[in-house]
Amino acid sequence: MPSYRAPVEDTLFILNDVLGFERYNNLAGFGDASPDIVEAILGEGAKLAENTLFPVNQTGDHEGCVRLDDGSVTTPKGFKEAFDQYREGGWVGLAVPQEFGGQGLPYALHVAVGEYMASANMALVMYPGLTQGAIAAILTHGTDEQKQAYLPKMTDGTWTGTMNLTEPHCGTDLGLLRSKAVPDGDGSYRISGQKIFISAGEHDMAENIIHLVLARIEGAPEGTKGISLFIVPKFKLDENGNPGTRNGVSCGSIEEKMGIHGNSTCVMNYDEATGYLIGGENKGLRAMFTMMNEARLGVALQGLSIGEVAYQNAAIYARDRIQGRALTGPKEPDKKADPIIVHPDIRRILLTIKSYNEAGRAFILWSALKSDIAHRSGDATERQLADDILGLMTPVLKGVLTDKGFEHACMAQQVFGGHGYIEEHGMSQYVRDARIAMIYEGANGIQALDLVGRKLGANGGRAVMAFFKEVGDFCEENRGDEKLAFFTKHLKKGLNDLQAASMWLMQNGMANPDNAGAASTDYMHLFGLVSLGYMWARIAKASHAKLAEGADNKAFYETKLITGKFFMERVMPETSAHLARIQTGADTMMALAAEAF
Amino acid sequence: MPSYRAPVEDTLFILNDVLGFERYNNLAGFGDASPDIVEAILGEGAKLAENTLFPVNQTGDHEGCVRLDDGSVTTPKGFKEAFDQYREGGWVGLAVPQEFGGQGLPYALHVAVGEYMASANMALVMYPGLTQGAIAAILTHGTDEQKQAYLPKMTDGTWTGTMNLTEPHCGTDLGLLRSKAVPDGDGSYRISGQKIFISAGEHDMAENIIHLVLARIEGAPEGTKGISLFIVPKFKLDENGNPGTRNGVSCGSIEEKMGIHGNSTCVMNYDEATGYLIGGENKGLRAMFTMMNEARLGVALQGLSIGEVAYQNAAIYARDRIQGRALTGPKEPDKKADPIIVHPDIRRILLTIKSYNEAGRAFILWSALKSDIAHRSGDATERQLADDILGLMTPVLKGVLTDKGFEHACMAQQVFGGHGYIEEHGMSQYVRDARIAMIYEGANGIQALDLVGRKLGANGGRAVMAFFKEVGDFCEENRGDEKLAFFTKHLKKGLNDLQAASMWLMQNGMANPDNAGAASTDYMHLFGLVSLGYMWARIAKASHAKLAEGADNKAFYETKLITGKFFMERVMPETSAHLARIQTGADTMMALAAEAF
Repeated sequence: MPSYRAPVEDTLFILNDVLGFERYNNLAGFGDASPDIVEAILGEGAKLAENTLFPVNQTGDHEGCVRLDDGSVTTPKGFKEAFDQYREGGWVGLAVPQEFGGQGLPYALHVAVGEYMASANMALVMYPGLTQGAIAAILTHGTDEQKQAYLPKMTDGTWTGTMNLTEPHCGTDLGLLRSKAVPDGDGSYRISGQKIFISAGEHDMAENIIHLVLARIEGAPEGTKGISLFIVPKFKLDENGNPGTRNGVSCGSIEEKMGIHGNSTCVMNYDEATGYLIGGENKGLRAMFTMMNEARLGVALQGLSIGEVAYQNAAIYARDRIQGRALTGPKEPDKKADPIIVHPDIRRILLTIKSYNEAGRAFILWSALKSDIAHRSGDATERQLADDILGLMTPVLKGVLTDKGFEHACMAQQVFGGHGYIEEHGMSQYVRDARIAMIYEGANGIQALDLVGRKLGANGGRAVMAFFKEVGDFCEENRGDEKLAFFTKHLKKGLNDLQAASMWLMQNGMANPDNAGAASTDYMHLFGLVSLGYMWARIAKASHAKLAEGADNKAFYETKLITGKFFMERVMPETSAHLARIQTGADTMMALAAEAF
Repeated sequence: MPSYRAPVEDTLFILNDVLGFERYNNLAGFGDASPDIVEAILGEGAKLAENTLFPVNQTGDHEGCVRLDDGSVTTPKGFKEAFDQYREGGWVGLAVPQEFGGQGLPYALHVAVGEYMASANMALVMYPGLTQGAIAAILTHGTDEQKQAYLPKMTDGTWTGTMNLTEPHCGTDLGLLRSKAVPDGDGSYRISGQKIFISAGEHDMAENIIHLVLARIEGAPEGTKGISLFIVPKFKLDENGNPGTRNGVSCGSIEEKMGIHGNSTCVMNYDEATGYLIGGENKGLRAMFTMMNEARLGVALQGLSIGEVAYQNAAIYARDRIQGRALTGPKEPDKKADPIIVHPDIRRILLTIKSYNEAGRAFILWSALKSDIAHRSGDATERQLADDILGLMTPVLKGVLTDKGFEHACMAQQVFGGHGYIEEHGMSQYVRDARIAMIYEGANGIQALDLVGRKLGANGGRAVMAFFKEVGDFCEENRGDEKLAFFTKHLKKGLNDLQAASMWLMQNGMANPDNAGAASTDYMHLFGLVSLGYMWARIAKASHAKLAEGADNKAFYETKLITGKFFMERVMPETSAHLARIQTGADTMMALAAEAF
């Protein structure tokens, strides 16, 4: 049976000492988040994750969701009760503005706690997770009436939300979508069509489900220019704003899939369902991206979350499993064998995951703070810069943290040997659950294309230049610090590779877009390595500072320095291979005819 | 629904043109394998794989095995009928000596066809697969009586075999095993104990199951020195050699596991079961390694097999799935979108898998030929050299081809987007099935340790030196060939990295074995890259020769050259990162206390 402990100490260290959370107390909502409050919130979130969500994770995987003949969907035993506690704790609305019933706290805190929740039960917290995306879209693009009608009940978790984009013949290419909307004369529309892969599309844990649905208004232009977004509630609201008559939307089937069995992945059929336009006619894609960007950060977090819980279990197993002897001679001669953690190759696995996780946690919290600044700062320039960086980093976070989250779940499973392949130990579930994060909300290849095709060159490369400057400045400022020299040396090398790759892309991607496509995945991972390397350099600096001031928990900071050193010497060398690959261009891979594959 | 076509043309090209199969016709059994016969056998094997084994693969995964209350195990519907055709075709005994009812054909042919079988239905062909290992052990270590009693029925597939090594508290470290054997006075033993993870341990497809069981004879030394191997038939043989009374061995339960659901993974309980010593008292480990080495090659092949079938399906999907437009403008302007194979990043995925698979196929066939030479050559020196190389390459084949097979199944799944996560499309099964190959028959970390700890330094490095010389000579001999210059340049660079890593290991691994352990996985993959790069150089040479002689299928050879070029420029650069990591040594990873993880 697996176990889970939320890494509260690490989150606090990152927020307070690495990222200087207190510096942001001029932002709205941050004043309410004093160090004590932050610690209390993380503590409460940890408790909910460990004691309420985690205990129904493995059973939820085993049991899965069931669709009954009437089209209703039953979630696994205990999910409803766990979700009741989640919503009663106010976790859905942690960062939602107070006027809609939220707590208006920093988004960074929502992300910090969100990690624990997804580690504990990814399938379950997808229900409120999708709701977050829907809330963001309504907050940004909804009318006042729409906000008043939907947000309070979604914020307190009484209702949940969904995102309805994909159709059988179109996922990435939404321009092909066929779902149609016909004006009803009263300002509303009748929506018809079929949507697939709709997470949390139908279930038994909320009084209403608010579907946000992309469709094409009759007569609208073809392609993405003719797409609009609609609010389609499962139950139409009555005059008091309560769920009234059933709308023309139903779950046609649920998918049998590799993992996240506790979440219902639905085929949703819309049959002249009443829908309300949001964000303007043919402006659906813009509104959709508001949901999508929120969702992409949430998915990036899932990668980290599963990597973390898988790591914890592998570390425990490695300390407990007695098998063979250390290569340098028995470490526990009184026993029949040593624990397998004496082996360098086991430590290589554990340190690889650990060093990615801790930098990944810093990376996503650093990015979440950018989101807070972008939305809450009073300074327009600061808002713009933060928004630039967040836009640049969203595909990097989503692509890299989910690729690695899956890889790390597999590595952690490997530590268990044959026992890792048996469902009982729970490691298979982590692998199966983590796999979807590389696919949904834009497959990672699409993230990579977004990075090289859209984000890299946006506004004359303003965002990427700002990031290079920030990292370069850090290296420069700390040049005299001998204790950091090892970190800045490797970071600088990585940054040089990234800059060379960026330069190559500027020169060759414009001339032939296939060169950009051929480089995209390598470039995304190269970008991720430098971002994580930058985080490690900052973590090392903060750790040295804590040691210098004589902090209590010396071992914690010393472990940080060793873990970071491992990342620098064992992981960062990959930047060279990425650069070499990028610079080979697209010619070879484009040379074959489609039939030659 | 997935599909599968056996790559017969590629196998023939590798055997005939790359490896020069005809040169070996002085070896026993090769005389019977004329080019026509080889082609006919591959064709028949392909038909069986495609038409008989493959159709029950996905249903077998879905249905799984069921243990009934009486301890019997039912295999999925259609498995028995498919296995009947497999055994009636004589496929179990393809390479088994004719005196025991086999066909005595080259082992390399058995491997060539084995790839198709495992691509078509990995879970099903594990039943005869385990039988092969048991046959090898009895052939090598059994008495004449034992051979006569068991081999003919195992060779014709009437009976199947198993390997019983693992116990709940011991997998890798067999020295800890507790199963015991008590002499019965009549030359046989009474075997008691529990074995776990026993593939094909109990099922309904054979008249008898011949278990090969490791146990400790009462009073034998502790550790691995006191382990013996026993033949324990499910039904004891009567005076006519037919299955008679039931032996004291039964299936206690079957495991719920991530994949290979069609194969029964059993907990086997031995309760004073009658067993017959094989290979001598306390010589069990030696006999076990005979099975194990055979099994490791079989598992390496599974990695290739799943990578191949996953690739084929991804390539078909990429040609069929219409979505979005090429980066350089519409390729099929009359349609609403282009097939996704126009995208460089999709081609990167496909070419990565394809370039590994084709070199992997050559690598394992090249190794299988070493096995044939080692067993069948009349020249002792030649036998020794072949055995050296085979011993060296066994962990490389097993570790690299299975790590990559799994990675490739995941990459192929990614091409399908959300559809890849749905069980219906079959890609999830390939990922779940491939995962076990990295674990069983010695987890890949153990393979890496076997390579650096045992194989590298064996006989003063005789094997590794011979391999370096072979690769170096190839580069030297082809130095003047301009058409091969690109290949030999990259191969030479990889070989240099591998030699530098080997040198580093010789110098630092002796001084501190943890340095060898810390380097092991990187070293194994570095070794794999150079081996596969060497295969590509040879494939390129053969392709150029075919083109020069005006061969019919020009496109086939031109595709080879491009695929190989991709491998050289996109995959081989990883050798540098492996070398850099190896040279950092063990200090950082050994610095942390176990509690710090």
